[in-house]
Amino acid sequence: MPMLRQDPLTGEWVIIATERARRPETFAHKKEERKTLPPRVDNCPFCPGNEHLTPPEVLIYRQRNAGKAEKEFPQDNFDWSLRVIPNKFPALEREQGASVAMPSSRCELFQSHPGYGVHEVIIETPRHNRHMADLDENELEMVLRSFQERTVSLAQDEQLRYVQIFRNHRREAGASIEHPHCQLLALPYIPPLLEKEYTRSHDFYLEEGRCLLCSLIEKEEESGERIILQNDSFIAYIPFAASLPFTTWVVPREHYSSLEVSPKGWEKKLAPLLKEFLRRLSDKLEDPPYNFFLHTAPLRTSMLPYYHWHLEIIPKLTIVAGWEMATGTFINVSNPEEAANFLKMPEREKAGILKQ
Amino acid sequence: MPMLRQDPLTGEWVIIATERARRPETFAHKKEERKTLPPRVDNCPFCPGNEHLTPPEVLIYRQRNAGKAEKEFPQDNFDWSLRVIPNKFPALEREQGASVAMPSSRCELFQSHPGYGVHEVIIETPRHNRHMADLDENELEMVLRSFQERTVSLAQDEQLRYVQIFRNHRREAGASIEHPHCQLLALPYIPPLLEKEYTRSHDFYLEEGRCLLCSLIEKEEESGERIILQNDSFIAYIPFAASLPFTTWVVPREHYSSLEVSPKGWEKKLAPLLKEFLRRLSDKLEDPPYNFFLHTAPLRTSMLPYYHWHLEIIPKLTIVAGWEMATGTFINVSNPEEAANFLKMPEREKAGILKQ
Repeated sequence: MPMLRQDPLTGEWVIIATERARRPETFAHKKEERKTLPPRVDNCPFCPGNEHLTPPEVLIYRQRNAGKAEKEFPQDNFDWSLRVIPNKFPALEREQGASVAMPSSRCELFQSHPGYGVHEVIIETPRHNRHMADLDENELEMVLRSFQERTVSLAQDEQLRYVQIFRNHRREAGASIEHPHCQLLALPYIPPLLEKEYTRSHDFYLEEGRCLLCSLIEKEEESGERIILQNDSFIAYIPFAASLPFTTWVVPREHYSSLEVSPKGWEKKLAPLLKEFLRRLSDKLEDPPYNFFLHTAPLRTSMLPYYHWHLEIIPKLTIVAGWEMATGTFINVSNPEEAANFLKMPEREKAGILKQ
Repeated sequence: MPMLRQDPLTGEWVIIATERARRPETFAHKKEERKTLPPRVDNCPFCPGNEHLTPPEVLIYRQRNAGKAEKEFPQDNFDWSLRVIPNKFPALEREQGASVAMPSSRCELFQSHPGYGVHEVIIETPRHNRHMADLDENELEMVLRSFQERTVSLAQDEQLRYVQIFRNHRREAGASIEHPHCQLLALPYIPPLLEKEYTRSHDFYLEEGRCLLCSLIEKEEESGERIILQNDSFIAYIPFAASLPFTTWVVPREHYSSLEVSPKGWEKKLAPLLKEFLRRLSDKLEDPPYNFFLHTAPLRTSMLPYYHWHLEIIPKLTIVAGWEMATGTFINVSNPEEAANFLKMPEREKAGILKQ
């Protein structure tokens, strides 16, 4: 019998389609002939030596002789290991002096507003062929630290209300540039999915006197059936009402409502766990396309007792189609507990499963 | 400067990304070597002669010697022109005697519910290779009539609250079976996007004393700048805050809140307009994948003064990626007015545009 499960954070009902459920290993991404990428591509705007092809960086992490770390690298005269640059074709832009108070929520027929905001690209590594799962922990820490640094910096603009950080891995998941990068959009409004999460979390807090996500991860630990990986600071699990196959949440154990209020050091704890998760995803599902994104509190909020920042990772293994566009909800053709079990097992046992 | 536009029906802000906007003709779908399909495929469960491969139909439109209408047809002994069948692998199912009152909306950590519902497939034509844009008007009328007949029939089950009809055209838009078909899911709850539309429309009604969509199409007619096609009963236009390139709404001019309360005859007016729209979409954008779906009132509501049923058609020309998954909103890289202008022009003038 199919099942409906409710995402406690958004209130959405997800259809867990048991009658059309597929075994976890059947989701392995078909490897079409994938070319092996070189460490540097001459006409890639994000590769070292082409810095002049992008707008000047707003944040750079330098490393002496960064170019010398890898032998095959044709250039050895660059000194950066991460750059954050304004997007050359921004979805939103800041203009000097624009008054940008958003209109009231009253229903008007044709309501528009200047597209005020910031759109940045985080170039994660100088190496064209080194994807997030291949970064060493130190490099991954720097990527995570840049999320926090940029958020704190953008929070100074009081016209911005929310920073959305996201990553598209591989063309099928929306990456139009091959070179590994994340994106950041700073917005003058709170996006609707976040608004839902804040409202539901706040309601829960008023009723129960504690944070919804704190309560959730406690229960997840008790049962353990959906946990993939954990360390003393973070826990990665497939949520009870996962919207799509292998949807995974990575949640800090300690309660922090945003990166802005998280004391430095979290990135050192998250990097090894995230790396292991991405490596396992890549190994077990044949380097699938995926999207990941951060959900965090609105800018300039001090510690909110009811909201808890986290990362969501959604492999792109099925097609968002008419149902999803019509209803704004999802049909998951994978059982969350089975999917977690599949990702939780060390690689060598996978062969055993495939043989059964 | 980029622009934010608010969808009056849902309240969502859409980013109209002028800085990354593409000219309409650049969205034409790249034709990879597409095979020409035969009128019948031996192992297709939806083709005539294979009726035993599907569950028995719940609705059938018969036509004497339907098989004789087309010469190349290998069988000429079937007599149907449309079949509605239960989905063999249903996302939701009805079970006898299940009590299905949905749980309260109070926030519980792990709330689940039996996946009670109905999942049907509308086989639009016996012909494997005749897509909706190629149906003759009479055939298309039958497809539309089946939407209404099935809705009225399913409304008798008081445990069902909403019927979602949708269509996925081509594999890239989620069609896993090649034979032309629509799908119908009858649900024990109101999907969140519909809930938003009802709430916003109701608020508008209380304030303005009239239907939001009636007011909207009146304004669209006044300006005309986003209208693609119209006849005396329907109007097809690209909404002001179109979520994606070429998103089109087809709206009945007369106010009806649902198919249930629409007097027969609407389908005769919609068929020619829908056919012309789909033909034009196919001609001008090289038969792009698309999703379409109906938005209508909850089951068993009499005429609601504030809600107005309509059809939404969304060509799949871009990839739903991290941004959309994170925020539940869209970035439209096409200008709605330009897109409407492109689709509104007769075919031969297109060549002129491409030459400019």
